Amino acid sequence: MKNQIGTRMEEFQLLDALFDKLFPIMRSITGDGYRESTRILSEYLPFDFQYVDSQTEVFDWSVPDEWVFESAQLIDPSGKIIIDASVSNLHVLNYSASVDRYLSFNELRPHLFSIPDKPLAIPYVTSYYERNWGFCISQDQLDKLPRDGDYRAVIKSDFVKGAVQVGTCILNGESSKEFLITSYICHPSLANNELSGPLVQLALYNRIKKWNRRRFSYRFVINPETIGSICNLYLNGKQLRERVVSGAVLTCLGGPAEKISYKFSKNGNSVLDRLIRDQFRDKLDEITTRAYTPVGGSDERQYCSPGFNLPVGQFARTAYGEYDGYHNSLDTKKFMSIDSLISSADSIERALFAFDNGGIWVNKKPNGEPQLSKYDLYSKINSGGKSRDQNPQDRLRLDCALWILGLGDGTVALADIAHQSGLSVDLLLEVAFILEDKGLVEYKN
Amino acid sequence: MKNQIGTRMEEFQLLDALFDKLFPIMRSITGDGYRESTRILSEYLPFDFQYVDSQTEVFDWSVPDEWVFESAQLIDPSGKIIIDASVSNLHVLNYSASVDRYLSFNELRPHLFSIPDKPLAIPYVTSYYERNWGFCISQDQLDKLPRDGDYRAVIKSDFVKGAVQVGTCILNGESSKEFLITSYICHPSLANNELSGPLVQLALYNRIKKWNRRRFSYRFVINPETIGSICNLYLNGKQLRERVVSGAVLTCLGGPAEKISYKFSKNGNSVLDRLIRDQFRDKLDEITTRAYTPVGGSDERQYCSPGFNLPVGQFARTAYGEYDGYHNSLDTKKFMSIDSLISSADSIERALFAFDNGGIWVNKKPNGEPQLSKYDLYSKINSGGKSRDQNPQDRLRLDCALWILGLGDGTVALADIAHQSGLSVDLLLEVAFILEDKGLVEYKN
Amino acid sequence: MKNQIGTRMEEFQLLDALFDKLFPIMRSITGDGYRESTRILSEYLPFDFQYVDSQTEVFDWSVPDEWVFESAQLIDPSGKIIIDASVSNLHVLNYSASVDRYLSFNELRPHLFSIPDKPLAIPYVTSYYERNWGFCISQDQLDKLPRDGDYRAVIKSDFVKGAVQVGTCILNGESSKEFLITSYICHPSLANNELSGPLVQLALYNRIKKWNRRRFSYRFVINPETIGSICNLYLNGKQLRERVVSGAVLTCLGGPAEKISYKFSKNGNSVLDRLIRDQFRDKLDEITTRAYTPVGGSDERQYCSPGFNLPVGQFARTAYGEYDGYHNSLDTKKFMSIDSLISSADSIERALFAFDNGGIWVNKKPNGEPQLSKYDLYSKINSGGKSRDQNPQDRLRLDCALWILGLGDGTVALADIAHQSGLSVDLLLEVAFILEDKGLVEYKN
Repeated sequence: MKNQIGTRMEEFQLLDALFDKLFPIMRSITGDGYRESTRILSEYLPFDFQYVDSQTEVFDWSVPDEWVFESAQLIDPSGKIIIDASVSNLHVLNYSASVDRYLSFNELRPHLFSIPDKPLAIPYVTSYYERNWGFCISQDQLDKLPRDGDYRAVIKSDFVKGAVQVGTCILNGESSKEFLITSYICHPSLANNELSGPLVQLALYNRIKKWNRRRFSYRFVINPETIGSICNLYLNGKQLRERVVSGAVLTCLGGPAEKISYKFSKNGNSVLDRLIRDQFRDKLDEITTRAYTPVGGSDERQYCSPGFNLPVGQFARTAYGEYDGYHNSLDTKKFMSIDSLISSADSIERALFAFDNGGIWVNKKPNGEPQLSKYDLYSKINSGGKSRDQNPQDRLRLDCALWILGLGDGTVALADIAHQSGLSVDLLLEVAFILEDKGLVEYKN
Repeated sequence: MKNQIGTRMEEFQLLDALFDKLFPIMRSITGDGYRESTRILSEYLPFDFQYVDSQTEVFDWSVPDEWVFESAQLIDPSGKIIIDASVSNLHVLNYSASVDRYLSFNELRPHLFSIPDKPLAIPYVTSYYERNWGFCISQDQLDKLPRDGDYRAVIKSDFVKGAVQVGTCILNGESSKEFLITSYICHPSLANNELSGPLVQLALYNRIKKWNRRRFSYRFVINPETIGSICNLYLNGKQLRERVVSGAVLTCLGGPAEKISYKFSKNGNSVLDRLIRDQFRDKLDEITTRAYTPVGGSDERQYCSPGFNLPVGQFARTAYGEYDGYHNSLDTKKFMSIDSLISSADSIERALFAFDNGGIWVNKKPNGEPQLSKYDLYSKINSGGKSRDQNPQDRLRLDCALWILGLGDGTVALADIAHQSGLSVDLLLEVAFILEDKGLVEYKN
Repeated sequence: MKNQIGTRMEEFQLLDALFDKLFPIMRSITGDGYRESTRILSEYLPFDFQYVDSQTEVFDWSVPDEWVFESAQLIDPSGKIIIDASVSNLHVLNYSASVDRYLSFNELRPHLFSIPDKPLAIPYVTSYYERNWGFCISQDQLDKLPRDGDYRAVIKSDFVKGAVQVGTCILNGESSKEFLITSYICHPSLANNELSGPLVQLALYNRIKKWNRRRFSYRFVINPETIGSICNLYLNGKQLRERVVSGAVLTCLGGPAEKISYKFSKNGNSVLDRLIRDQFRDKLDEITTRAYTPVGGSDERQYCSPGFNLPVGQFARTAYGEYDGYHNSLDTKKFMSIDSLISSADSIERALFAFDNGGIWVNKKPNGEPQLSKYDLYSKINSGGKSRDQNPQDRLRLDCALWILGLGDGTVALADIAHQSGLSVDLLLEVAFILEDKGLVEYKN
């Protein structure tokens, strides 16, 4: 995990350019905008796509028809176009039906959506599963609309047979057991709560691809939120259950919060759950944690549903509900920074590296302690600690070796050793690799 | 569980009248007083009785003969009757043998029982398993007795073959699994530590009978304390082991303490144990708790004995040992109020209702989340919480639904969901019933 | 466990005399000094010896040749003998090879060992597994050595085929399950961190031999540290695994610390672990505790190694690393007192007595409570605690009886009852013996 300055600059430029390309696209959970967005991502992260056709019954859900959107305009009684979706994708109720009608203000009012306590923000509102039409508008603009005369509402859109599309890409490792890294793309023109996820996912893909070795395989998944992860479970649930030993949803990873936070999986005992609980116990400057809850959140709710109980948590930085711009037009690149995405990728990569190596290391010389001096791991002249082990860092490394060997009966994970010993996972890993080179331990996937 | 004012007044009048009828009866663990008391109770709570004959070996015990009591008088050297059991049932040592003797004060002294630090109280003393005779007397009176001259002690009583009598009444529910509600009757003329138990038991019987549905069956048991519950285990132990999933002894439920308290069962993990630990976690104004102990207490000691290990706890309000009148003549209706009995019944009924419904609710649509909008459980227009879910109480109900569904894999009880989510059992139950109506969950007994 | 004053004086005299005999012997992990030391101990604690020959491969180790030491002198440029191992055994690097060479100060320097921050102390240094030679010297003396001229280093020693020697002595008890009491002897002329262990071991042997009954067997083991316990595991590992249910290494038991401390075994749940955690919970004036760590410590590291996972902890008073004299010439009888050894033996004997009797007591009358009055364990006249049970100590004994009987279903150890009830193990044991005499309980080994 070297700090490759060149690569980091390239990474910044790549994410920045992709953001600008993806932000303006008129997206939804289906349709051309979704297809175009995932096509662009696939140039860098080669997803294979699976399809679930419209109207298919998927568990308790029915896959909706594709939404074909053309334009949306609201014209005031004086004939002036006062709302136009070509100005902001958020202006139209996502999944609006077609309409061309004259209405009084009172007839129009139920079709206007605003946020009373955020007078300048255009809300992001959807109606996927019930036919409706409408416009999203700032409260300021709404307050100024004339009450008299007839408005004209013109929305051109259609619903056609199509599919929900789930993209999967697997980086194979030594074990076929997988870590699931999943994010969603469906919201149009929202930054933190939309593009931050797929962009950090891409950064992680590029980084993990370069690791010297991968003990586990890494499954990257992209889909529209909720219905997409439900379709993924429908298509691949059995395989996911067999393979996924830990995983995380990526969402809201580009905000200004100082630290990323991890929401534990439902059962709270995945390898990553335990690593993060233990590894970062005394270092809350890096990753904070949140308890699992089925209220709020993202696709982890589907993966953790009782029928699957997959060990999937969630990473976020400035999470949904924690910032003014959540689900409205204030969620732009002004709020979300590319630097913050890269910092999120740094923290998550570090956690995943610990995941990849932080399981059970088995002591191959389990009967009594190995004779450490044979392996140049222990001073050959023993004088009660007054030898070259005196160097505090060397002393800590020797401690790590003794802990890893001493608890290496094949039942205790490195995370637990970190917990019990108070030693950091990073240093324990460094020493585990040395012991592995010397043939003293082996990793048990 | 509607507040039926009419019923509550009837309940008060019934308990009050029964108290006055039961209090004066000369009771013991066997005999006419016991029979008369349980006959009166059976007019309202239709117990079936089982009998264990005198001298039967019951586990480590031997059932005593019945005590037939006629009269007890102590006559002082001047010929004055100074103690007469017809004035207070407590004046005679319960299970006294027959005697008619002249004795000096010093000869008499070992047969007089008083409480030195409660000068006005007549103690309640028994000698069931060793033949003895005696009088119970206030310390004040004892101090004033002349030391010279001969006293005459006259007790007319007999011991005859009879039986210990155990009453059982079962309210059947959907499941044959039972909650055991047991109390005792044997002490004569004591209020809180005697009649409070059977009277609250009767109130609970009347209330549970009126529930719309009972998922569990409710077994009501009455017996003399200790030997009675041992006989119950002797007669019905196998059945109790098969059926009883939780239970509680009722004792001392009419005192002035503000709250009732629950003594956990020995293993501390019955459904009721866990419900009360979790449900009332943050509401110690309703039910406080006590750890299990085999020291002190009542028949739960027998039910929890190692040979049976039944999950039986105990409810009390102002418990044995916590008030001056414990086991003496101060324990009267002045101390114990009917209002307090009704308040105890309210709290216990509420706990039992939670017991009846607070087990495992299984999500019938476990694969992914159900599409809640189909069930009118979730706003059909989703705008990040800014919809009609905004109503805080509705929001809480939606949270309850998501928790019940999200953890509904058939392994997690509602009590644990309350614990993990911080939501109240009452609200969770309310929502569980709604989900049940909509076919989304089913109760697993 | 009577306080036999006569015996305690004899014990003091025995330990004192043995100390003086053992201290001056030039010991190492093999050879004549080791043989002489263990021969002396065997006069009082009849060990049987087993041998592992030099060069045998023992797990990851190879048994070293025996070290035959004759003399070691360093002569300064003026011809004066400035270091002579006949003055202090510590002056020669333990396991030094033979040498007779003239060297400049700079050539000599790497063969001189001192402790910079303890100017007066001669360190104890060893080089068992790599051939080397050297002198141990105080920093003060080292600083004053002339830098010019040639020194002569003369060490007469040899290496011969021999063996590592492990001594075992078993005191049989009712069960063949064993408690392992092990210590080491190998360091020459060190008091607390050497002789304290075998001397307390001897005191415990003499005391446990006199117990009225032993429910468990007691295995006493002596060996050179590390290589000796590894040889013990090599020779007897299978047997130890079958028999040892708990055990402790004895080390550093004669220092001035007020209390002994117990280092838990690796898994932390041996009978002794649990007893000490519970018994001394509220009495930290007697035994303090330390968490297990594979870093530092003594032979428990070998017994707890992953291949064996034996439930072996460690007792110490002023432990290695906690005092100035650790592994140097300050560790003498001035620092370590015989009184302290005896006090250590007192505390450990008390813990072992609790171990011997503190397991599972099974209630033989498990159905309901036994009728305690039949056994003279409960007042026959019951008046709510106002009987002869009023004596607070009697009341506590009755409480103990009720707890032991009430939790006696064969799954709960006395240690857990102590924990749950808050009663002391000592009093619980006293009552358990009474109940055993009355046939109410039996001990389950």
